[in-house]
Amino acid sequence: MIVNMSEKATEQEINHIIERIREAGYQPHVTRGTERTIVAAVGSGRRHEIEALQVAPGVDNVVPIAQPFKLVSRQVRPERSIVRINGVEIGGPEVVVIAGPCSVESREQLLDTAHAVKRAGAAMLRGGAYKPRTSPYDFQGLGLEALKILSEARDVTGLPVVTEVMSTEDIDIICEHADMLQVGARNMQNFALLRRLATVNKPILLKRGPSATVKEWLLAAEYLLSGGNSQVVLCERGIKTFETEMRNTIDLAAIALARDLSHLPVIADPSHGTGKQSLIAAVSRAAVAVDADGLIIEVHPCPERALSDGPQSLDFAGFGRVMRALAEPLRRTASVPPTVPAASQNSP
Amino acid sequence: MIVNMSEKATEQEINHIIERIREAGYQPHVTRGTERTIVAAVGSGRRHEIEALQVAPGVDNVVPIAQPFKLVSRQVRPERSIVRINGVEIGGPEVVVIAGPCSVESREQLLDTAHAVKRAGAAMLRGGAYKPRTSPYDFQGLGLEALKILSEARDVTGLPVVTEVMSTEDIDIICEHADMLQVGARNMQNFALLRRLATVNKPILLKRGPSATVKEWLLAAEYLLSGGNSQVVLCERGIKTFETEMRNTIDLAAIALARDLSHLPVIADPSHGTGKQSLIAAVSRAAVAVDADGLIIEVHPCPERALSDGPQSLDFAGFGRVMRALAEPLRRTASVPPTVPAASQNSP
Amino acid sequence: MIVNMSEKATEQEINHIIERIREAGYQPHVTRGTERTIVAAVGSGRRHEIEALQVAPGVDNVVPIAQPFKLVSRQVRPERSIVRINGVEIGGPEVVVIAGPCSVESREQLLDTAHAVKRAGAAMLRGGAYKPRTSPYDFQGLGLEALKILSEARDVTGLPVVTEVMSTEDIDIICEHADMLQVGARNMQNFALLRRLATVNKPILLKRGPSATVKEWLLAAEYLLSGGNSQVVLCERGIKTFETEMRNTIDLAAIALARDLSHLPVIADPSHGTGKQSLIAAVSRAAVAVDADGLIIEVHPCPERALSDGPQSLDFAGFGRVMRALAEPLRRTASVPPTVPAASQNSP
Amino acid sequence: MIVNMSEKATEQEINHIIERIREAGYQPHVTRGTERTIVAAVGSGRRHEIEALQVAPGVDNVVPIAQPFKLVSRQVRPERSIVRINGVEIGGPEVVVIAGPCSVESREQLLDTAHAVKRAGAAMLRGGAYKPRTSPYDFQGLGLEALKILSEARDVTGLPVVTEVMSTEDIDIICEHADMLQVGARNMQNFALLRRLATVNKPILLKRGPSATVKEWLLAAEYLLSGGNSQVVLCERGIKTFETEMRNTIDLAAIALARDLSHLPVIADPSHGTGKQSLIAAVSRAAVAVDADGLIIEVHPCPERALSDGPQSLDFAGFGRVMRALAEPLRRTASVPPTVPAASQNSP
Repeated sequence: MIVNMSEKATEQEINHIIERIREAGYQPHVTRGTERTIVAAVGSGRRHEIEALQVAPGVDNVVPIAQPFKLVSRQVRPERSIVRINGVEIGGPEVVVIAGPCSVESREQLLDTAHAVKRAGAAMLRGGAYKPRTSPYDFQGLGLEALKILSEARDVTGLPVVTEVMSTEDIDIICEHADMLQVGARNMQNFALLRRLATVNKPILLKRGPSATVKEWLLAAEYLLSGGNSQVVLCERGIKTFETEMRNTIDLAAIALARDLSHLPVIADPSHGTGKQSLIAAVSRAAVAVDADGLIIEVHPCPERALSDGPQSLDFAGFGRVMRALAEPLRRTASVPPTVPAASQNSP
Repeated sequence: MIVNMSEKATEQEINHIIERIREAGYQPHVTRGTERTIVAAVGSGRRHEIEALQVAPGVDNVVPIAQPFKLVSRQVRPERSIVRINGVEIGGPEVVVIAGPCSVESREQLLDTAHAVKRAGAAMLRGGAYKPRTSPYDFQGLGLEALKILSEARDVTGLPVVTEVMSTEDIDIICEHADMLQVGARNMQNFALLRRLATVNKPILLKRGPSATVKEWLLAAEYLLSGGNSQVVLCERGIKTFETEMRNTIDLAAIALARDLSHLPVIADPSHGTGKQSLIAAVSRAAVAVDADGLIIEVHPCPERALSDGPQSLDFAGFGRVMRALAEPLRRTASVPPTVPAASQNSP
Repeated sequence: MIVNMSEKATEQEINHIIERIREAGYQPHVTRGTERTIVAAVGSGRRHEIEALQVAPGVDNVVPIAQPFKLVSRQVRPERSIVRINGVEIGGPEVVVIAGPCSVESREQLLDTAHAVKRAGAAMLRGGAYKPRTSPYDFQGLGLEALKILSEARDVTGLPVVTEVMSTEDIDIICEHADMLQVGARNMQNFALLRRLATVNKPILLKRGPSATVKEWLLAAEYLLSGGNSQVVLCERGIKTFETEMRNTIDLAAIALARDLSHLPVIADPSHGTGKQSLIAAVSRAAVAVDADGLIIEVHPCPERALSDGPQSLDFAGFGRVMRALAEPLRRTASVPPTVPAASQNSP
Repeated sequence: MIVNMSEKATEQEINHIIERIREAGYQPHVTRGTERTIVAAVGSGRRHEIEALQVAPGVDNVVPIAQPFKLVSRQVRPERSIVRINGVEIGGPEVVVIAGPCSVESREQLLDTAHAVKRAGAAMLRGGAYKPRTSPYDFQGLGLEALKILSEARDVTGLPVVTEVMSTEDIDIICEHADMLQVGARNMQNFALLRRLATVNKPILLKRGPSATVKEWLLAAEYLLSGGNSQVVLCERGIKTFETEMRNTIDLAAIALARDLSHLPVIADPSHGTGKQSLIAAVSRAAVAVDADGLIIEVHPCPERALSDGPQSLDFAGFGRVMRALAEPLRRTASVPPTVPAASQNSP
């Protein structure tokens, strides 16, 4: 932490800061410039006490130096983590595709979808039982009935199941039926939920909040790891920006960044990330190119009749096309233009 | 709801849409243009079934017409609502100032603050017992102990108390001690929490989420009203934007807009809205000018020693200055420049 | 400037940085922590050379300390600047209201409007001659004809005139007819334009870009001042955010912040800032409450027939209501609730 | 265009709208619902006259139906356009890589870079002569001298050259030396510049503005095409969001979307899009996967000594690694988990 004194700071104000840095458990190091003085807080003390000095007299601002997260960091664990869900490995050499409907709507709808996505190459099944909906008048999910249907689908297809948990009260029942628990984007900073999920023996899929920075996302994961659950997969699903043509702006570079900063696997959700059927294949390929460890994609037998997220859901044929697109090579880079004449002679 | 067919839509595709609109409980009205056809869904049916038609063949897009919220709307209730908290009225002719520390840190800290803010003119006391913190390593609040201290402060000062609820599990104990329950910005779309708070007989302070549109905010309130709790006060506390100089961008125009769209009272939080001590007075005045029904302001005996939100907290003297600023008149509008000579003779 | 070395930086890498800081004209000061080393660049040298060290081996990041702007800063000039436009003073004790149509559409339209806004208390007249339009198919302004009409309106009403300049090629002709030149939001970082306007002997109204931070805005003003033109008025007109209900999100707190950081006058544009007729009065009041030095408001004889910006334009009666709203006092703060019993005994 | 009347609209207000729609050259079609009436404007008339009805009495809002751009649209030209720059084809089957320094700093720097990027497989050379810099105190480019150096580099390497044009006044001289003219992100809506570039016989590289929607970007291109220049390449370079860890948020899905909506080629700028050396390779691959027609990448002989954009510039070895990364296949999709053999009966 570095405390920048203002140009008009008095000697007394500088001394006050030096003293407060000692009180907070750090060692103060003073650098006196021609215009201003800076005081570094060295060692490890109580971070928030230095942060609060921002309002002490004579202080311009306080600048953090180190990253605030620890256990999720590659400094603590340089090798990549692998999260295992009932035989499926996320974070290993292969890309894991999770597919299924936004909401479980009926036994038939889910089983048909489960078989279809398995045939097309999906490794896991998704399906919402408890749905976070912007409006109280929208379909809120089938709850326990949906969990039972998911369980059955896993039994008949062998695909491990992930479903969203919205409340601490539902954790136990969901753990009985699902193989992985999802924390939705709007609950990324529901700390009560995170703290309870930290004590659960199930892997967690942690979606990035629509207005969360990468740092805040990693700190949400830190709640899980510091509480005892290190089976965490991060999921980029788009952030809110001024662009209205797509539902969200999917931040694919953040996948590369999160993998640089953290050892946790990171997957992408092109369905919520774009909100548009027609963009899913291209964005899925891009996510894999940027080294995502997996994809989670919404698939529905008949998107135009879906009770939720129809516009971004693929039908079975569409999902098949996406899976095939993932196997295609990248477009070739242009070689140097052949029409150019004497160009090559001068190049070393 | 209006379904815009693409320019290439076939007669068969248009007929499919007409049929689906009937299935969803609406009456279809077709308008055929020179280039494209639009089909309106008239009456009241199942909205999501029309929304999902966005992916039906031949459809360009689906445009909603009516606002999605009902009970919070001024169309349902044109007169303004007043929320009463133990003798204090939010939404009436006077601006209600709620003040207190971000977190309750000790009995002495809270009682001193409660007396100070009362003296300066605050009508209610705030103080966090359960704290939502970005990092698991930050101070998480004193919990039940804090609730008891808040209760005591209310008893000795008479100021009604508002505190944040982060989890359904804490609702009962908080209801015992507090007069109003706050839903924090990061929990605005914690629908499990909202559904439970809808059944509680306490007024709710509902903060706008950092990436919530005004519509999403009103729909979150709709969860409370449609579940049975109409004692809801909205609170604008800033949204996340690209600007980094301030903690958030406080959207004061949204206060005017929310009051246009809804009958619920709306207050402003200039502390989180700016994150900067030095801007609180000016932004508080602006919030009142834009017709906010109240303010919620962070005050701490010694901000540079606060366990949370120090940089945006006022000390007692600073809070006094803010309260006095609220009583000052607006700066006077310039009259027409006196140097201009014969100008006026020509004006009609 | 502070260079944070990574935890794994070698002694050689640290020495390289020390040497590079000297080369850049600064003095290096080294602080060695338990985990990492930081090197401060003290004095004044070539800033960009330190910034570029971000990619030198062993460096984590580079943190600027001082603000990058100089002449616009209150550190250089603590007292507030006043900009004089033909007898009108912006930045003085009174709020200056500039009003008029988005575009000059005809002689009659402009003269009628000029008289009307003058009667209502406006001190200056606005009107677009060269219009920046998102689509090439929209009305692009009357150009020179509009400038002549503006000139005439100034002559008959005495109201000084401000109009937008979009291109260096139009500067001379606009200077002949207008009293103040506006740089539009989309041209805030049109540096070629700024450099030429720095040499012009006319006051400049510099709008904040829709995605410009306050720092970038002040640096745009720095182009004008450092080039020789210190008659600059800043104008907040809303930034782009995810909120779609309003045209822009007006950042009123930024007005207070810009006035803290700079001595230049700052005005607000509630018309573009909200895009909604119905919000102009409330937001205008808020801007004055946050200490804006003026307002610029769009007024049209018949907004529903305006060739541009109709939805946010006021008619004459509406503008009169806004002017009267500016004279009303702020809503009163609630006193302490009278129902509270023994509360007062402890408080003085 | 659709005009939604409010629920309280009178018959007279509805008739006024019907009449105004006729005046604007459209045919009105009225749909009367149980709650409200909507009036569609059918055919082709003066769009802005309908937009302005938003403020007519009894109107709730006005909703556009068709896209506002024409010549850039795939509805006008379904096949993809190819832009030819001196023998290089952008928009054809191969990905074109444009590389070079942010600014031309010296003859040696540019020629070394030109040879290096050519060897590594770049097809075009970039280099700034006139630099848009946030601060007036930063390096502003070598101007004409840089143009001459670029010309020489093209002559000796055969790589066509692209450089930025900031002002209408520089167009002629840049056209003499460069093969393609770049409109920078901050000038995307500098309409005076666009209108002049529409008359130039050189291909244009049009960067997306940091706060421009895809629609606004395409409308900026429409200025060029409607003015007579159809040799336009679009370039996504990141938008401004709340995320601070990267310089911009690169919107890769927008590349797929722009290619869906328009026939123009689209390339990506991973250097500005991330601002981080370490992310360039991954994001370049992702851009190609999302079907970008090319890449523009900043390369410098010694990034830590660059006069601009050092932190995001690659050195020669780094650029070579990026080019090799583009040739690697995508990571393989996981097949159905092998541990789940007889899956259909009993999963663990």
